[in-house]
Amino acid sequence: MIRAIGGLKEGFSDIGDDLALCDLNGVKLAAKVDMLVWSTDVPKGMKLWQVSRKAVAMCVSDFAAKGVRPMACLVSLGLPRGMREEEVEELASGFGRAKEEFDVEIVGGDTNESKELVIDCAMFGLSEGMVPRGGARVGDRVMVSGPFGYTSAGLKMIMEGMEAEPRFRDRALRSVFMPEPRLELGITLAGKRLMNSSIDSSDGLAISLWELADKGGVGIELETLPVGEGVLEFSEMNGLDWEELVLYGGEEYEIVFTVSEDRVEEAKGLARELGVELIEIGRVVEGGGVKYRKRGRLEPVKRDGWIHLK
Amino acid sequence: MIRAIGGLKEGFSDIGDDLALCDLNGVKLAAKVDMLVWSTDVPKGMKLWQVSRKAVAMCVSDFAAKGVRPMACLVSLGLPRGMREEEVEELASGFGRAKEEFDVEIVGGDTNESKELVIDCAMFGLSEGMVPRGGARVGDRVMVSGPFGYTSAGLKMIMEGMEAEPRFRDRALRSVFMPEPRLELGITLAGKRLMNSSIDSSDGLAISLWELADKGGVGIELETLPVGEGVLEFSEMNGLDWEELVLYGGEEYEIVFTVSEDRVEEAKGLARELGVELIEIGRVVEGGGVKYRKRGRLEPVKRDGWIHLK
Repeated sequence: MIRAIGGLKEGFSDIGDDLALCDLNGVKLAAKVDMLVWSTDVPKGMKLWQVSRKAVAMCVSDFAAKGVRPMACLVSLGLPRGMREEEVEELASGFGRAKEEFDVEIVGGDTNESKELVIDCAMFGLSEGMVPRGGARVGDRVMVSGPFGYTSAGLKMIMEGMEAEPRFRDRALRSVFMPEPRLELGITLAGKRLMNSSIDSSDGLAISLWELADKGGVGIELETLPVGEGVLEFSEMNGLDWEELVLYGGEEYEIVFTVSEDRVEEAKGLARELGVELIEIGRVVEGGGVKYRKRGRLEPVKRDGWIHLK
Repeated sequence: MIRAIGGLKEGFSDIGDDLALCDLNGVKLAAKVDMLVWSTDVPKGMKLWQVSRKAVAMCVSDFAAKGVRPMACLVSLGLPRGMREEEVEELASGFGRAKEEFDVEIVGGDTNESKELVIDCAMFGLSEGMVPRGGARVGDRVMVSGPFGYTSAGLKMIMEGMEAEPRFRDRALRSVFMPEPRLELGITLAGKRLMNSSIDSSDGLAISLWELADKGGVGIELETLPVGEGVLEFSEMNGLDWEELVLYGGEEYEIVFTVSEDRVEEAKGLARELGVELIEIGRVVEGGGVKYRKRGRLEPVKRDGWIHLK
């Protein structure tokens, strides 16, 4: 347990995967808890209903990455003294919205008083198995379910007042306030056994890739970075390194996974039917760690990721 | 959901019972979340391992009251910045102890940073049903699984420096720091269908009785109060009303339940085999609310309960 908690401190589940799978007298339960804390997770300008919706969305994204359908959740609330009735109702409306959006029943909960808002969501479903973090095979293609860099850019606008072109600003802020977990995509790809390994990218792209490499005992070589439209322009405008935004951001709720080379087109086709453009970013190689082939040279990618708001 | 959250604010689950029961494609899952917050739930002098153990024990007590065996739990931790490695390890050792004591696997978790320590425990088991809060029948005897008043007394020693005879002090502080949920008792009584209605008493005896009365559409008449040994002396010594300590305390993890009159002895006998002396405190009557027959006169019992440390 001590080792487990040590593991938890890195933001990963103690079983070393996005979901815990357990066998209750033959019933295979998949479960996840995720705690959202006001001072570390809620950027300025985020509405309360978006905060409660996001608390649920965070859990849904882990189920999405593992290809398991979540069925129900319980919600614990730590409410600061002095929170007004309308504010509690706004939180409730966010839960209601999440319930509809993700088709997850909210079956129970608890409330307490705390110094700051805390929302802990415990979610579960049934599953015989899940796509593991550690299943990458040499030769697999490395894929992501969407472009990166929007949330990092959005957080820089919110927290450091950085400027942006209006349309990009909207897109970036939406990625921060209204994350869209790729639930149907994950379930579809897992159902066709198209993902050999997978992880939810919310801790950042680089650290997610490192996890797939480490757990699979393989290396990952990136050929391209999945940079979001407008991220380069935003970076130039603000003197930032766009690669940093893409690799070491976080709070993106995309699926990072590997697929056998001969099934890439099948995966892309299924994703397209769901309105998702998969992006191929590299391949699984022998060895270990994550490198990025940039102008013909292999450069190391750091094992760094998102922690939380300062 | 808004109404549900309104319900949650009173400290009760949104389904109005100690556990949430849900049907996942025919699998009957019983689940519970309980959030423990440093500033509202942890009295001075409580060790960190006792705090994490208690976070688990709180959930176990709800399963005990409903007669359902808990099987696994997930734990979310909000850790204050600057918490030392040894402190985190002490928390871990408390979880380890709870796992052994209550035979509940800790299958996953999450950690985050927060302004104060927050431990949210999500626990689950399998059950076809549970003893409801609303099952009391007119004529039932009202029972409790142990004496009351120790925790209130203990908290008064800790928070207001009240004096006590040393042996009573030990007992009272143990009740605060090391609550002992009545898991085997609850499962045994429920297995023999001896409880018609039940509730975990952690919100206080009076409010728990009110819940059984309200949910059952009946009244409860108390004939005696289950006062702990030494509570009278402690109250006298400190100028307190011992009935207040017994009725309106809280944080006692006893089971309050009703049993058909002709099965009282059977229940007592089974409890005794488990080392528990059940106490008969009154009976279920027609009408509503909770009254206490004191020197021949029926006095109302207030619908008041434990909130948390100030």
